[in-house]
Amino acid sequence: MKRNLSLIIIAVLICLLTTNSVPTMKADALIQNHKMAQVAIVVKDIEKARKNWAMVLGMDVPEVSIAKSHPSRPTKYKGTPSSAEAKLAFFNLENIQIELIEPLGGNSTWQEFLDTKGEGIHHIAFMVKGIDGLERRFEMQGMPTDQNGGWEGGAYSYINAMQMLGCELELLENYQSN
Amino acid sequence: MKRNLSLIIIAVLICLLTTNSVPTMKADALIQNHKMAQVAIVVKDIEKARKNWAMVLGMDVPEVSIAKSHPSRPTKYKGTPSSAEAKLAFFNLENIQIELIEPLGGNSTWQEFLDTKGEGIHHIAFMVKGIDGLERRFEMQGMPTDQNGGWEGGAYSYINAMQMLGCELELLENYQSN
Repeated sequence: MKRNLSLIIIAVLICLLTTNSVPTMKADALIQNHKMAQVAIVVKDIEKARKNWAMVLGMDVPEVSIAKSHPSRPTKYKGTPSSAEAKLAFFNLENIQIELIEPLGGNSTWQEFLDTKGEGIHHIAFMVKGIDGLERRFEMQGMPTDQNGGWEGGAYSYINAMQMLGCELELLENYQSN
Repeated sequence: MKRNLSLIIIAVLICLLTTNSVPTMKADALIQNHKMAQVAIVVKDIEKARKNWAMVLGMDVPEVSIAKSHPSRPTKYKGTPSSAEAKLAFFNLENIQIELIEPLGGNSTWQEFLDTKGEGIHHIAFMVKGIDGLERRFEMQGMPTDQNGGWEGGAYSYINAMQMLGCELELLENYQSN
């Protein structure tokens, strides 16, 4: 009996110590990790921006790729199919990725941002799991989806969190790592 | 002679392998590290924003502090002394810090951003060494200082890199870690 009591006390102490030493993540958190994946900047001229960023960071000038609608999850802007395209370039820093985005026309959150606010930091991105369910949970909290789409093996959703968080969020899901 | 030649070939091979496996940082880089320290969001209402961010991330609501001019490096906005103040709140993620900023009046880059663009992501920050010399190097590359100031043991400079990089940069120096 005494031995059982001792075991219970030890178990409770371990629970208390663990609770205090590990950063808390509430179970109903919408973003279930605390690692920011990307900061993305919308620019008018990616040729100029990628060279200037390379100079400031002392890095090689990165290649440019084209983001376009993909059959696995065709691009939608505010719920309507969109032919939006953009030029992208990435700098892989130690702890995060800087993404440069030059919109190439078509209805998109990138073009809307450039037209209304000019060049600037468009969003911050987090990796998530279950992106479609998360879109609905964000919408229920007053943060609707501005644009979504995908690529071979992955999906993205831009969440309009301007009113709630003061910025746009991007959710990214890599199906291969699920 | 043959042995010397072999040693030279081995040394050249080691150099080539090392060059390819370590990320390059050019000697004249303006930012001498590849770790982003902060992403900062200018908001109208920090009370609302800090609660909403805490809900989305499943974290505790952080405390609010006041940023104001400090005698060690009095606040200047575009070269002129400024009485600008702001409320600040910080979320410490695993790899980066999210900073919320509510301007409290006075001439500042925060207030100018809010007045011209509305709420949004104001800057990204990097830790640096030798902040005053760096301000001059950025200015020589077409990126003047918008605002600078300090706190007990540290200094900050907001670099207007809108034309060159598409965003505002913040340089942060912690004198104690020098």
